[in-house]
Amino acid sequence: MKQFINPSKTQWQALQARPTASYEDVMPVVDAVFSAVQTEGDKAIRLYSTQFDGYCPEYIEVPKSEWETAADELTPELKGAIDHAYQNIYRFHKAQITPHVKVDIQNGVRCWQEKRPIEKVGLYIPGGTAPLFSSVLMLAIPAQIAGCKEVVLCTPPDKSGTIAAPIRYAAALCGVTRLFQVGGIQAIAALTYGTETIPNVYKILGPGNQYVTAAKQKATQFGVAIDMPAGPSELLVVADDTANPAYVAADLLSQAEHGVDSQVILVSTFSKLLVSVQQEIDIQLDVLPRKDIAKAALVNSKAILFDDEADAMRFINGYGPEHYIICMKNEDTFVKDIQNAGSVFIGNYTPESAGDYASGTNHTLPTNGYAKQYSGVNLDSFFKAITFQKISSKGIKDLGPVIEEMAAAEGLQAHKNAVSIRLKDVT
Amino acid sequence: MKQFINPSKTQWQALQARPTASYEDVMPVVDAVFSAVQTEGDKAIRLYSTQFDGYCPEYIEVPKSEWETAADELTPELKGAIDHAYQNIYRFHKAQITPHVKVDIQNGVRCWQEKRPIEKVGLYIPGGTAPLFSSVLMLAIPAQIAGCKEVVLCTPPDKSGTIAAPIRYAAALCGVTRLFQVGGIQAIAALTYGTETIPNVYKILGPGNQYVTAAKQKATQFGVAIDMPAGPSELLVVADDTANPAYVAADLLSQAEHGVDSQVILVSTFSKLLVSVQQEIDIQLDVLPRKDIAKAALVNSKAILFDDEADAMRFINGYGPEHYIICMKNEDTFVKDIQNAGSVFIGNYTPESAGDYASGTNHTLPTNGYAKQYSGVNLDSFFKAITFQKISSKGIKDLGPVIEEMAAAEGLQAHKNAVSIRLKDVT
Repeated sequence: MKQFINPSKTQWQALQARPTASYEDVMPVVDAVFSAVQTEGDKAIRLYSTQFDGYCPEYIEVPKSEWETAADELTPELKGAIDHAYQNIYRFHKAQITPHVKVDIQNGVRCWQEKRPIEKVGLYIPGGTAPLFSSVLMLAIPAQIAGCKEVVLCTPPDKSGTIAAPIRYAAALCGVTRLFQVGGIQAIAALTYGTETIPNVYKILGPGNQYVTAAKQKATQFGVAIDMPAGPSELLVVADDTANPAYVAADLLSQAEHGVDSQVILVSTFSKLLVSVQQEIDIQLDVLPRKDIAKAALVNSKAILFDDEADAMRFINGYGPEHYIICMKNEDTFVKDIQNAGSVFIGNYTPESAGDYASGTNHTLPTNGYAKQYSGVNLDSFFKAITFQKISSKGIKDLGPVIEEMAAAEGLQAHKNAVSIRLKDVT
Repeated sequence: MKQFINPSKTQWQALQARPTASYEDVMPVVDAVFSAVQTEGDKAIRLYSTQFDGYCPEYIEVPKSEWETAADELTPELKGAIDHAYQNIYRFHKAQITPHVKVDIQNGVRCWQEKRPIEKVGLYIPGGTAPLFSSVLMLAIPAQIAGCKEVVLCTPPDKSGTIAAPIRYAAALCGVTRLFQVGGIQAIAALTYGTETIPNVYKILGPGNQYVTAAKQKATQFGVAIDMPAGPSELLVVADDTANPAYVAADLLSQAEHGVDSQVILVSTFSKLLVSVQQEIDIQLDVLPRKDIAKAALVNSKAILFDDEADAMRFINGYGPEHYIICMKNEDTFVKDIQNAGSVFIGNYTPESAGDYASGTNHTLPTNGYAKQYSGVNLDSFFKAITFQKISSKGIKDLGPVIEEMAAAEGLQAHKNAVSIRLKDVT
């Protein structure tokens, strides 16, 4: 990790910058795949699955029989762990249900807000070296609680042409309604337009590489909502002399192993920690199976010393980390004053891994500084809020003149008339 | 209005379709303006204000002195009406504050969710023939309640080169922090990149024409969030023999006067209503100052009879109206079963105008079928939800093995290590 000691404010922007992803290289491919899927449907899905994934499954939809029996393919330990995580994630997201907001604004004017589930959602789970069944839990559990009618999951098959058992098991457990073994841009295009086999949806959620992210952005041009733009995963740890250097190193490495483009930042107010954490990283790194990836990610990572805690806090808010671990004596301030972060982990016994898998919080979080304006995926991601109002004759009599006055001032006479015509009858 | 009697389901899609807005014509202009504003800042703002609005104001920022005294320029009636609407809108949005969600997931594992305001928001108010000060209330009041630090308002000046007094007054009343007399694509570009005078923001909200909408979509490629894609305004009324035809006609006309591309749909289960509403429209239309606009909008509007109430409900949900008025004997069912709508108005004394101005609900709503996946602007539009967790040594001891099992199954050894290294110390 590169060290920076009390960087001046003019350096902050450079330190807070992420590697900029350019969609311009990617967009021609995305455009071509979208266009093909729109006109050729499943045929294009098969073509691009062969071309990009090197494997075209015999059937695009995984039949229910294959996922409803997936539990039998798991060890009891893994099944137990998934079930435990399911319970925790379910509880935390269930607690996010908001009551209807009902207000008698004035005599005879009642307004309320209710949330209704988005009827059709598409969940995307990336492929890769290992089956990311934890992301199935994170996306499908809130969809299940919200009561979305159609929960469609797309994920690429592995090299043997199958969907790993833990993914199939998690899909069944969380009430996914249909499972398709399709990945990449072609999956997002299918969820956008629909094909003979894959239904279109109203919203697409889930992580992905830059192709999938660019495809999701394109989908928004065709009446589909997305959870958020995704970028490489990132972690910022703020720590002082109350932190355990070995734990901090382990947390930083857990982020660094995600990908060579992962972002890892240590902010400290205790200069010796920069040294001790680096020593621990060197020790722990060596035995990691994914050490080449972690090593590459660490090259771009930063350890920054701030003598002033307030500066540290300002720097962190300017960065807006996806994951933010606090191991500080003064932890309350670092909790209270955080404005921009996806998920916050407090104290020496709260590794990011807990939130990645099983504590209950969601791990689909805003990266790339998007914590400044986006929430991570949560129960509300699967709802839309609708407002309602009912006004009585007494209510319109009292409120009507206000509406008339404003409508007239905006030059909208028909808006005013809609009130005046009623006022004539009630006064 | 064109009439359709019990249209078959194969016709529904065509009846539910909106005129498709193509961004392709618009994008070259948007790209050019964004590029110029990014490189030339205020100079480009001045250039495009002259070119598009036909007027380049002497100064881009409206000094506070000009808006803090705006009250004196209003009639007492208009000031009173705005103040009344302010109170109602404030109350309804204040009631949307959600308490922190705090759950002790299991012994020693506490997770919670808190909302923090988006620090910098940009509000866009379109120009046009009349000053849309009501939109200032709808956007700036929730920003004020949420506690956004910077609330930047952009709106084009009128032909005399000033911002109308009601807009300046509303801005001051709702705690807007800075006001810029800039509109169109160049305003959205300025809020995206920032210029010498106009600060960049994290989220842009507000209505606009197709240029502004395309510009907002472009802004999302540069780390800015938006409220939703906007389209022409629309209203669907469902009514039976309990409805007052004159009121229904007035409501339909209030929508039709917005623009020639406005969408107006009457769904009825009572065939005589189609005739009586058309008669009332003909009577009321004639005296409207904006009758040419309303007339043009009505050409594309539809009156649809369904003998079956369940079919009517299915049709409405398939359409997903921005505004949805219910004047039905069986109103409870039409309230309960609505899945896709922006804002719902119930009964004969609840005109859409009430929600447009003063009842308390927001009028910035999803059009173009986006009610299927987007909420209208509400208090949460100005917050992001952050999750927190704190785990004790007891907590990690109990939950740790679950995390280890799952991390190992996903092939993420460093994620597992972050737990194992702690478990070694606590067991």
